[in-house]
Amino acid sequence: MDSHLEDLFTLLRFPSISTASEHAGDVRACADWLVQKLTGMGLGVELHETPKHPIVIARNDHREGRKTVLIYGHYDVQPVDPVELWDTPPFEPVIKDDRIWARGATDNKGQLMAHLLGVEKTLQEKGELPVNLIFLFEGEEEIGSPNLVPFLQAHKDELKCDVIAVSDTGMVAKGVPTMGYGLRGIACCEVLVTGPKGDLHSGVFGGAVANPATAVARLVASLHDENGKIAVDGFYDDVKPLENWEREMWAQIPGVSDEDVLRITGAPEAFGEPGYSSAERLWARPTAEVNGVGGGYQGEGSKTVLPAKAMAKFSFRLVPDQDPADIQKKVKAHFEKHAPKGVKVEVVVGHDGKPYYSDPHSEDGKAAQRALEKAFGKQPVLIREGGSIPIIKDMQDILGADSLLLGLALPDCQIHAPNENFWVENFEAGIKLNGYLLEELAKG
Amino acid sequence: MDSHLEDLFTLLRFPSISTASEHAGDVRACADWLVQKLTGMGLGVELHETPKHPIVIARNDHREGRKTVLIYGHYDVQPVDPVELWDTPPFEPVIKDDRIWARGATDNKGQLMAHLLGVEKTLQEKGELPVNLIFLFEGEEEIGSPNLVPFLQAHKDELKCDVIAVSDTGMVAKGVPTMGYGLRGIACCEVLVTGPKGDLHSGVFGGAVANPATAVARLVASLHDENGKIAVDGFYDDVKPLENWEREMWAQIPGVSDEDVLRITGAPEAFGEPGYSSAERLWARPTAEVNGVGGGYQGEGSKTVLPAKAMAKFSFRLVPDQDPADIQKKVKAHFEKHAPKGVKVEVVVGHDGKPYYSDPHSEDGKAAQRALEKAFGKQPVLIREGGSIPIIKDMQDILGADSLLLGLALPDCQIHAPNENFWVENFEAGIKLNGYLLEELAKG
Repeated sequence: MDSHLEDLFTLLRFPSISTASEHAGDVRACADWLVQKLTGMGLGVELHETPKHPIVIARNDHREGRKTVLIYGHYDVQPVDPVELWDTPPFEPVIKDDRIWARGATDNKGQLMAHLLGVEKTLQEKGELPVNLIFLFEGEEEIGSPNLVPFLQAHKDELKCDVIAVSDTGMVAKGVPTMGYGLRGIACCEVLVTGPKGDLHSGVFGGAVANPATAVARLVASLHDENGKIAVDGFYDDVKPLENWEREMWAQIPGVSDEDVLRITGAPEAFGEPGYSSAERLWARPTAEVNGVGGGYQGEGSKTVLPAKAMAKFSFRLVPDQDPADIQKKVKAHFEKHAPKGVKVEVVVGHDGKPYYSDPHSEDGKAAQRALEKAFGKQPVLIREGGSIPIIKDMQDILGADSLLLGLALPDCQIHAPNENFWVENFEAGIKLNGYLLEELAKG
Repeated sequence: MDSHLEDLFTLLRFPSISTASEHAGDVRACADWLVQKLTGMGLGVELHETPKHPIVIARNDHREGRKTVLIYGHYDVQPVDPVELWDTPPFEPVIKDDRIWARGATDNKGQLMAHLLGVEKTLQEKGELPVNLIFLFEGEEEIGSPNLVPFLQAHKDELKCDVIAVSDTGMVAKGVPTMGYGLRGIACCEVLVTGPKGDLHSGVFGGAVANPATAVARLVASLHDENGKIAVDGFYDDVKPLENWEREMWAQIPGVSDEDVLRITGAPEAFGEPGYSSAERLWARPTAEVNGVGGGYQGEGSKTVLPAKAMAKFSFRLVPDQDPADIQKKVKAHFEKHAPKGVKVEVVVGHDGKPYYSDPHSEDGKAAQRALEKAFGKQPVLIREGGSIPIIKDMQDILGADSLLLGLALPDCQIHAPNENFWVENFEAGIKLNGYLLEELAKG
């Protein structure tokens, strides 16, 4: 285990924050280290430049008649703000209470390394792999993978595969192996509201000039009715209704009840779209979430200004069969329709990605479930996921292969938040899983 | 003029930000400098300690049979954020385009120095003043004067006076002398909304947990109807209706039309309570203004979190005969009534101050109007003010004296905002005004 942890810690020390331009060099250094590591494993490695962060590809010697398996991961991470809430520095990994603590520990460096080290172990023990393998590691997942789709399109033939394996999703609870067959999509946008040319004294000018912070708040508030139902015209038009077997299975799954969600998040009460359980709200219903709102004076004490501008950042989580482009259009129209008087409202459309759905009972799906059972000693549960990995849908569309979502994240692993962590036992199980997975897929 | 500007620049160089605890020493140093300056003028000076920032009192020799005039000013200033929007450093005063640029240039150090130097000039030229004078300079106006009322109550007898002069308000336009007879009051509060114990991944948890940023936006939005009328129950109950002579006079005053407000502020269109002109909205109608709102990720790019908390800071501008305590109660009840489900809402009541109104046609009022006419060579206009100086009402209540509001601020002087400035010609006229004022008041 020691050398495995050493490799993971090295990877975690790169502050590879893809959204922050000042970290571009760190993202690059992280990719370079992966190239070196994969080359050392005896694989054929390529580093592909993109307009932003590089893509790393590695392959064993491919032979006719074997199944081709593509394993996808990403080596970029989310920002670390508010950094003062971290108990230990985000890019100085430590083990404490049987967990690895660092930005990226779970999302996605820990899981990427489980793939990589599982393959390394098989190579070391057996000298070869039972399948044709392609590793595809990108550095732009946290900014919506802007350059991966063009890359896939340009390298469609070299990346041809039968099935894809991805560990970038979650387990419902500790010790409960989990296979995902659906993901929410995403559509992001930002609203900028401007009013006066500079901040104004709220006494001298208040009352005769519209307040951009009030305006942005009215726009945020316009997204939901008071019960949490989304109020954008036509938003639910294409939502695929839940199937009965899903509602029944999910009601039995440990760790995703309303009470579990409250315990894990610390939220004071369950809240969401009326008529659905927490699991159903998270996995099969869309959302309209404000990720950040800001305007005016936010410091100590009071400052009686009428702010010149205010903004809000939004992400909409989408479910099959919602189309992100359609939702972006509807949301933009909504904001324009609800634009308060007296201010200028600008809607900046951001990145998006389609929701994903595949049949969990396919041959490869069953092979993956056998591998999960071997690695964890327990039968896996079948779920969808609340998070978005747009690339899964893109790979389905471009490469024509479904993805097996074999996530190792736990609900309290704090991904995208301070104190991100990864259980050491999940890291170990993940390494084993990647050995069994190639074996089982080769049988199918 | 040179020595006058030198004195003002010295005063402006103290970063006497009363709300920021790290600037307490600067506030103190500023008071010490005033003590030294006033002592040098031959006045009897006292520095009074308070639980926070000191009060400076100065007197000439008081004689029986003369009118006693109290002149009030404040030497503290507002914060300077966002400091990057200043063209020159806020505490390094410069003259550029015939204006003095610095934090406090107008509010209130420039006007305070006009009082002080007008008195100094009379003393230098005539050897004595025509009235008994009391200077009262405080260092807590920008944080709501928490220690001034107790001080006034404790020193009621020594501060007994016939009339009070204050230059902490505005002129309607350049070259138009202006006397104020009314001020809006204020009531401040802050709303803190908390949800989950930490920021959450908006995909993993979005939909099943209420979003505090959405909740705070809904609370902000609840304050107004879509036309800008305040929606707090009973908010307008005690508002004194505008008198006809006020509406008629204000419609003639230059610089306060809807178009003027747009030109000065750069706002894209006039907006406010239906049925009133901009001047009426600013001077005689109450407001509900959000001074700051914040929650979640506000940095570059996107970060798809569901924030753990969000907040908004509010100030309500009040008019006669609204009572701040009553409004605080109504606002708190409003926020509690509208508290969204799924989050905790805490309302923190802040500082407040009563609105002010006095008869502009009193003997002292007429004397002040004569002094204004002499200083500016033009008949003054009579206005109310949109800003709040709670202490004016407190002095009326405790000392039993009305205040003459002889403001020298211009609408584009950027008080409380970046690039605060003061016209040199207003500084000069203010110095003259303070000579004429004591003469005219002595006649009455």
